[in-house]
Amino acid sequence: MKLWDKGVKVDKKIEQFTVGMDRELDLQLAAFDVLGSLAHIEMLESIGLLEKTELKLIQEELRKIYSSIKNNDFVIDDGTEDVHSQIEYQLTLALGDIGKKIHSGRSRNDQVLLDLKLFTRNKLEEIVREGRLLFDELIAKSNENKDVLIPGYTHLQVAMPSSFGLWFGAYAESLSDDMMVLQAAYKVVNQNPLGSGAGYGSSFPLNRQMTTDLLGFRDLSYNVVYAQMGRGKMEFTVLSALASMAMTIGKLAMDACLYNSQNFNFLSFPDELTTGSSIMPHKKNPDVFELIRAHANALQMLPAQIQAVTSNLPSGYHRDYQLTKEFFMPAFDKMIACLEMTRIMLSEVKINKEVLKDERYKYMFTVEEVNRMVLNGVPFRDAYKKIGQIVEEGTFKYEGSVKHVHEGSIGNLCNDKIVDKMNEIFVGFNFNKTKEAYMNLLNRI
Amino acid sequence: MKLWDKGVKVDKKIEQFTVGMDRELDLQLAAFDVLGSLAHIEMLESIGLLEKTELKLIQEELRKIYSSIKNNDFVIDDGTEDVHSQIEYQLTLALGDIGKKIHSGRSRNDQVLLDLKLFTRNKLEEIVREGRLLFDELIAKSNENKDVLIPGYTHLQVAMPSSFGLWFGAYAESLSDDMMVLQAAYKVVNQNPLGSGAGYGSSFPLNRQMTTDLLGFRDLSYNVVYAQMGRGKMEFTVLSALASMAMTIGKLAMDACLYNSQNFNFLSFPDELTTGSSIMPHKKNPDVFELIRAHANALQMLPAQIQAVTSNLPSGYHRDYQLTKEFFMPAFDKMIACLEMTRIMLSEVKINKEVLKDERYKYMFTVEEVNRMVLNGVPFRDAYKKIGQIVEEGTFKYEGSVKHVHEGSIGNLCNDKIVDKMNEIFVGFNFNKTKEAYMNLLNRI
Amino acid sequence: MKLWDKGVKVDKKIEQFTVGMDRELDLQLAAFDVLGSLAHIEMLESIGLLEKTELKLIQEELRKIYSSIKNNDFVIDDGTEDVHSQIEYQLTLALGDIGKKIHSGRSRNDQVLLDLKLFTRNKLEEIVREGRLLFDELIAKSNENKDVLIPGYTHLQVAMPSSFGLWFGAYAESLSDDMMVLQAAYKVVNQNPLGSGAGYGSSFPLNRQMTTDLLGFRDLSYNVVYAQMGRGKMEFTVLSALASMAMTIGKLAMDACLYNSQNFNFLSFPDELTTGSSIMPHKKNPDVFELIRAHANALQMLPAQIQAVTSNLPSGYHRDYQLTKEFFMPAFDKMIACLEMTRIMLSEVKINKEVLKDERYKYMFTVEEVNRMVLNGVPFRDAYKKIGQIVEEGTFKYEGSVKHVHEGSIGNLCNDKIVDKMNEIFVGFNFNKTKEAYMNLLNRI
Amino acid sequence: MKLWDKGVKVDKKIEQFTVGMDRELDLQLAAFDVLGSLAHIEMLESIGLLEKTELKLIQEELRKIYSSIKNNDFVIDDGTEDVHSQIEYQLTLALGDIGKKIHSGRSRNDQVLLDLKLFTRNKLEEIVREGRLLFDELIAKSNENKDVLIPGYTHLQVAMPSSFGLWFGAYAESLSDDMMVLQAAYKVVNQNPLGSGAGYGSSFPLNRQMTTDLLGFRDLSYNVVYAQMGRGKMEFTVLSALASMAMTIGKLAMDACLYNSQNFNFLSFPDELTTGSSIMPHKKNPDVFELIRAHANALQMLPAQIQAVTSNLPSGYHRDYQLTKEFFMPAFDKMIACLEMTRIMLSEVKINKEVLKDERYKYMFTVEEVNRMVLNGVPFRDAYKKIGQIVEEGTFKYEGSVKHVHEGSIGNLCNDKIVDKMNEIFVGFNFNKTKEAYMNLLNRI
Repeated sequence: MKLWDKGVKVDKKIEQFTVGMDRELDLQLAAFDVLGSLAHIEMLESIGLLEKTELKLIQEELRKIYSSIKNNDFVIDDGTEDVHSQIEYQLTLALGDIGKKIHSGRSRNDQVLLDLKLFTRNKLEEIVREGRLLFDELIAKSNENKDVLIPGYTHLQVAMPSSFGLWFGAYAESLSDDMMVLQAAYKVVNQNPLGSGAGYGSSFPLNRQMTTDLLGFRDLSYNVVYAQMGRGKMEFTVLSALASMAMTIGKLAMDACLYNSQNFNFLSFPDELTTGSSIMPHKKNPDVFELIRAHANALQMLPAQIQAVTSNLPSGYHRDYQLTKEFFMPAFDKMIACLEMTRIMLSEVKINKEVLKDERYKYMFTVEEVNRMVLNGVPFRDAYKKIGQIVEEGTFKYEGSVKHVHEGSIGNLCNDKIVDKMNEIFVGFNFNKTKEAYMNLLNRI
Repeated sequence: MKLWDKGVKVDKKIEQFTVGMDRELDLQLAAFDVLGSLAHIEMLESIGLLEKTELKLIQEELRKIYSSIKNNDFVIDDGTEDVHSQIEYQLTLALGDIGKKIHSGRSRNDQVLLDLKLFTRNKLEEIVREGRLLFDELIAKSNENKDVLIPGYTHLQVAMPSSFGLWFGAYAESLSDDMMVLQAAYKVVNQNPLGSGAGYGSSFPLNRQMTTDLLGFRDLSYNVVYAQMGRGKMEFTVLSALASMAMTIGKLAMDACLYNSQNFNFLSFPDELTTGSSIMPHKKNPDVFELIRAHANALQMLPAQIQAVTSNLPSGYHRDYQLTKEFFMPAFDKMIACLEMTRIMLSEVKINKEVLKDERYKYMFTVEEVNRMVLNGVPFRDAYKKIGQIVEEGTFKYEGSVKHVHEGSIGNLCNDKIVDKMNEIFVGFNFNKTKEAYMNLLNRI
Repeated sequence: MKLWDKGVKVDKKIEQFTVGMDRELDLQLAAFDVLGSLAHIEMLESIGLLEKTELKLIQEELRKIYSSIKNNDFVIDDGTEDVHSQIEYQLTLALGDIGKKIHSGRSRNDQVLLDLKLFTRNKLEEIVREGRLLFDELIAKSNENKDVLIPGYTHLQVAMPSSFGLWFGAYAESLSDDMMVLQAAYKVVNQNPLGSGAGYGSSFPLNRQMTTDLLGFRDLSYNVVYAQMGRGKMEFTVLSALASMAMTIGKLAMDACLYNSQNFNFLSFPDELTTGSSIMPHKKNPDVFELIRAHANALQMLPAQIQAVTSNLPSGYHRDYQLTKEFFMPAFDKMIACLEMTRIMLSEVKINKEVLKDERYKYMFTVEEVNRMVLNGVPFRDAYKKIGQIVEEGTFKYEGSVKHVHEGSIGNLCNDKIVDKMNEIFVGFNFNKTKEAYMNLLNRI
Repeated sequence: MKLWDKGVKVDKKIEQFTVGMDRELDLQLAAFDVLGSLAHIEMLESIGLLEKTELKLIQEELRKIYSSIKNNDFVIDDGTEDVHSQIEYQLTLALGDIGKKIHSGRSRNDQVLLDLKLFTRNKLEEIVREGRLLFDELIAKSNENKDVLIPGYTHLQVAMPSSFGLWFGAYAESLSDDMMVLQAAYKVVNQNPLGSGAGYGSSFPLNRQMTTDLLGFRDLSYNVVYAQMGRGKMEFTVLSALASMAMTIGKLAMDACLYNSQNFNFLSFPDELTTGSSIMPHKKNPDVFELIRAHANALQMLPAQIQAVTSNLPSGYHRDYQLTKEFFMPAFDKMIACLEMTRIMLSEVKINKEVLKDERYKYMFTVEEVNRMVLNGVPFRDAYKKIGQIVEEGTFKYEGSVKHVHEGSIGNLCNDKIVDKMNEIFVGFNFNKTKEAYMNLLNRI
């Protein structure tokens, strides 16, 4: 038996296998392909490979295509392999031979890499903005609940007093560190590969600094071999940075699921944000946080997924890199959804302000009592022994209030300092530069 | 049958299992434990929990211990659980009750986390310095061999002309991007966790800004819950950054093994840097690069290893974090060895300057010829067709020289720009701040 | 700014996020859901929870739905959450209250788990059959080319004589080991979870042995807590087995790409199975094998992906398991495509029978010459020294023929033994049992 | 600055780097190297490459070495690279040129691969035996506590009644599935690679079936290229099987840590099996289970670690495989420790038989009540509505007993069936065959 006897021709099978998910994924690159082309032709004209009038004509046509993309009117025709071919095809249809000139000094690899970088730069901006919204929500919730005490755990054992102020604030500060890692990834991405051709440059006298400026890049990926080596590496760097943020979100989600359990009952969510059971009327399942947790954990494995595909490939392009798009491109929207869903959930969270009334938590105040005695002059060992005795006798009582004053403690959260950290990082992204560059290319000053 | 019938007592087994590799690993933390303690006691004195004279005595003793560590005289006694206990024990032996006062306002978790951060900060500095040495070697080799052409490959197929200048330079620029990622990790690490206690702070009026300054930290990990949440997260962030650098080294090593094969013969190494075979006199195996490649690939999986252990652990300390030290701590020396071995190998590499004499590479010049005709006014399609015909007829000849002039191409490597990138990042680490802080603590101004 | 100001309602967002890709994926489970229901109702009738006439009516309706699925007429309506609801809805539409009775003694979790197991059992059968076809192709190619010598490499260095007979045969034997691992996974899957409810069983007197027999399962997953614990674990076990097979395919693909390079030129493929370049007329890129390699490598990371999501989840169902379907379900078709594409490529491969004519390979015969002398009575050291001298003098000549006779060597491939191994494993799957059970349920004897 | 200025010579550094951890790890292979050699020489004699008297002499010497290994008297001398060299050196010291004859028809690669397989076969046996002990403990505990009810959770929410009988039994059945996966791995390993040389066989007329029988192997790895391809693949297969078992243990450990928390209080451990805190007298931390969990999770990532190192290596030996020993060889003892520690902990666990007295669990009986009414003839919807109302009114009461009768439910655990499953698999390992073969080789019948 031969499989091609089933009626599907071998070459059709080969085509399906090699095209894979490219046509779906490429639609997300279309707008960036146009922007890259706008920069490329302006540069081509400057080095004499395009007439001024030709430039004008192509610019107009490309801007029309850009509009059609923004209006969701753009499609990749059946039989057209990818977004680059589609755009070139439309240009040629409109302008004849002039349209074809856009390909001078540029290779397909060049274009894919550029498009991916512009796409990534854009998605990282979305993530940073969405991450910032979540950060603000966490800080707000931390300030709002700074006096609500909960038990702090070590080894999942009740340990010492903590607070909702600390709990929310911890995740805010965690996001500020994630943002710093994200910024390094953003800077690595934000370097222009255009002009690297298939990884060995071009014999045309391209002006790569010019396209760097036109596209609002921070710098060039100079070495053309390295520029193409960026396939795989860029994905790894960016996904590693997302993984860091996902780790923060994943832990928050785990805490939320646990604290929402009847066995903790620290917090709950309104009915419309939980799911019930068709047979158990008492169930309010935190499915949203469970799925956030699952997505966050899955995201953390993506760098390994990229490594698995690219590991031990010698330098130079290999078709294997095409597959990395399937893991890479959807990761951003998953991250954004996790950030947004977390924010929505937290904005509606109901805090249990009476957690500490449960007797099982009382011994977590022993250290407070010991320390209080020490500050009043009793030697540590004596204080420890005395409180130990009282616990043993079952007569331990605690005042119930906690007076921590040092930086970052229950009584002194330093949320303002944490906000300062975040602000400083946020400014460093300099998103306006990109925006302005795009405005210029699209002639919308 | 019960396993404890074999003669090993259950509690001994439990102890072995729980201590694990801690005692070996902790030796590497000893010096940092002393430095952290020196900062802690100076702060304790400032808030009145230690007398000035007590401070002096403990300082002297700690500096003695520091010297013994540097002289490799320090040991963790049998029966002593870890480095922290050992140092406290030695202080108590020397100073009696005064020695014990060092533990006020500090917990074991606090100490481990601080020690790990100081250790990591130090190791990252070593890596950055070693990485810089390799970078310099790569730039030197790139400049030296900028005119030696080799084939450039795509899909492992001979594609277009490349050069050793491009090849070495590509890995140099790759390292500069790695260094940027490394710097973000360094900044995340370089924040003071001391004072976070077991993750819920302390009721003592600690001055955390003071220890931050004394230890030369860039900033505080403010929120005490977040500070302890750094266990696992710091390891992930740092190992992800190392993974990026390992990816660069791994690809270089793969290229080197391939180019060293008789089927490529682009480069070779002196006999003392290769291994032979007891039965095949012609063998010169590139074992060093194979092991570099293997280590580099293994290093890239470590973030996933950390995730595997820490994933879905709720906030708060868990003993699981102890195990992460086994993956985390040895990673640095492996990375350093890879960087150093790569540099040693490259410094001795023998370049084959006659690669292109092999007939099999000649068609990679077709694009050059097509482009040359285009620049001379022949339309692209006509030029392409003509060269195509000539190839078909088997009479294709090529001039053999390549004139690429744009930024980052064979004829214009821009290595100076790449060095500028690296320099700018290198300065940003500001290693002197740490050095000065340690000097002050050790009283060696 | 609030994101829900954009016009998308929060509850709509929540719904999208929680439903995820379920509706698309569930379509693949539809037929299995019907089969499971057919078994379940027959059992319900046997324990008195359904009348005989009711059973008949539901059976008829379910068989109609089964036909509509097989004819691709089945759809999950907008607004219907999943396949289980859709089928129950159609039953109710047709039969009123009788249709609802199907849910007695069964929970959603129960159904999903059963459907996944039936789906997996089916897909594993497809993989085994497709794997067998590839195995046969490899054995055929091995036998066909058993006399064509190629160099064997160690350390990517030319080492000793090998042959295409050995090369093809190696991958055949590798597949036979993969098949054994696959069989263990198949056996683990092939145990009935139906009746485990939401993981804690049911107070109805279900007859689980009966549904086990009706569905052609090998055995029961007895313990109901364990049955539900199978979510995550089954996926891990199955994907680990696929990973083993993927490892085989991935290595074969890497070899094929390398051997297809101009630097090796051991084999090539007809034009219609390679891709060209719009600018380089000499390029014949092995994209198919590059994508096979990429998919094979990606498949190997899926067990880690499952672990990432499920690690450290306590026992009992969590919504996180839903996400595992996104990695798990598409893996099978990817594996099948890799197996099929590999077979198609190999069926068309052109073998270079003149590889050894290249001078660079001649020293690989030194060991042959040494051994030949040893067998003729010359002590090994003397023989080794003599051949060494000859190599040194540059006068080494080799007879060019290789006489290896032991099991599994060039001259004695033992492909018949390898086929025996495969046959024995293949029979062990016992696929007929499943087929017969389904025939009975569908009343098509 | 050059690093070799520090005083360490380059060649010393190279040596350290290339030897790595080999000398430590090789000690574990010593006994197996001797066994392999005993089989090899008996075969050499049979094909005339060794005199009968020479055979005797070498046998005696090898058996002496075997004894020294078993008595821990065997050492690898400084300056000797590995275990193979050490043994050959000792033979030569004792027997002169006769000792050297052992190397005929065998290569280093051959030996390493064989030793690793024998080592693995042995370690898998240990794991199977230790796993069986844990299984027995779980079954015993399940039977013992079959009537002790606990809440069953879904989504970490209290759902329906479960029991300690179910909980312990679930992990027992899970181990039986793991054992099936382990057996497939064992069978893959249990095939003889000896005679494959460096991966391309030998021109000596070896009798590989004979060494297969002498070493008690199940079958041959026939194809010599495949035999050597087993490096990496064997490790992957075995570690994937261990990962499956580790997943079982890891989940059990997570449950144990959670159930031990004050918030659950389902079970506890005696003081000597928990750790306390120097400052919190109430702490009893389940460190043993936390470390089991951490190890179990780390073990699950090892297949990915192997893949990372071996991915995309073309066929043929590469030195990279040496590094896999560092992940592979210690995995077994870690797995064994996890199994043993889990068993020790469970053997001392204290079960809380009063869990259900806590009011918070009462609603988990709602389904029981609904089903009870259904079985008494009330339609499901009416029953569900009625119980719903009662819950709403806050007057829900439950009988507290649970009557589940179907296979694998609370009232009918089917532990005997689960034991049958395990027994059937256990017998299939056929460990005696190996034992007898070794006895013969060592002349201890």
